[in-house]
Amino acid sequence: MEKYRFLLSGSGGQGIITMAILLAEAAVIYEGLTAVQSQVYGPEARGGATRSDVIISDAPILFPKVTQPGILVTLNQSSFVKYGNLLRPGGLLLTDSQLVRTSEDLDVRHVSLPLHETVVRELGSAQSLNICTLGALIALTKVVRPESAEKVLASRFPKAVESNRKALSLGLELANNVRDAL
Amino acid sequence: MEKYRFLLSGSGGQGIITMAILLAEAAVIYEGLTAVQSQVYGPEARGGATRSDVIISDAPILFPKVTQPGILVTLNQSSFVKYGNLLRPGGLLLTDSQLVRTSEDLDVRHVSLPLHETVVRELGSAQSLNICTLGALIALTKVVRPESAEKVLASRFPKAVESNRKALSLGLELANNVRDAL
Repeated sequence: MEKYRFLLSGSGGQGIITMAILLAEAAVIYEGLTAVQSQVYGPEARGGATRSDVIISDAPILFPKVTQPGILVTLNQSSFVKYGNLLRPGGLLLTDSQLVRTSEDLDVRHVSLPLHETVVRELGSAQSLNICTLGALIALTKVVRPESAEKVLASRFPKAVESNRKALSLGLELANNVRDAL
Repeated sequence: MEKYRFLLSGSGGQGIITMAILLAEAAVIYEGLTAVQSQVYGPEARGGATRSDVIISDAPILFPKVTQPGILVTLNQSSFVKYGNLLRPGGLLLTDSQLVRTSEDLDVRHVSLPLHETVVRELGSAQSLNICTLGALIALTKVVRPESAEKVLASRFPKAVESNRKALSLGLELANNVRDAL
């Protein structure tokens, strides 16, 4: 399999690190893959962008930091400004259509989805934005099966099984609707 | 300052990753330091040991994985068996006195504390074992101030401020009682 290099980013309260851990655990525990998940905190951690890296592969991973991601998620404007230029040409950029404005001339596959708007409307708050985004990410990359993410969610958050399943499937649906256009 | 290299380990449900993130965030947000925090998941993640690495420094950190930790925490037997020999000679080993049995001839500074027993007795469950361990780790290494850990805890878990403060101070006390003997 190819090596998947994710850079996930957004603002402090959006649950970026949780999303990264869930993705890594789904790959390792339920898909038999190898994963590395890391946070590099510098002075910028005190600013508006949280970043978490995940590498998933079927072979051992020697260097855990992502220098040039193949898949970039940015859930707020400052993370897009900061990390947008790291994405490799032809890579996949996933942004929230309400929270991030991008320029038009990106040499990438750009998917802009109303993730925030949808979770707020369907679930009553933005708390599950990260889970919804995870669903979209899984639909777009197929790096793990949706069931694997559901199992990790159920095991980590046993009190929120239903709402997390709903958030995940909202993201899966949103992304499946656009995937064929990529 | 010296570079602090932590390897934190234990079993799956003990909150090892949360402890690592809290330590890194306390250092970065409230002490102005740089930190890297990572999880390397291999096939062993499906076994009995969870591992999380944290490096804290006042300079940029280039390689995020800890190969030879200066400080090793093991909160269950299988993590001690697995990672015990990685600790550098003269390094600091923190173990739970009830959950981990070590051999006598370790060439390290070994601190064995009744962390599990104390949180269960004082707080009624083992859920805060990781926070109590964080308190002990801070007392032993002085890498961050207790107030910085308190602030991160309050900001991350606003609904559990009092119990987390209590768990943290239990760990601080346990470790301060033995620190002078090191």
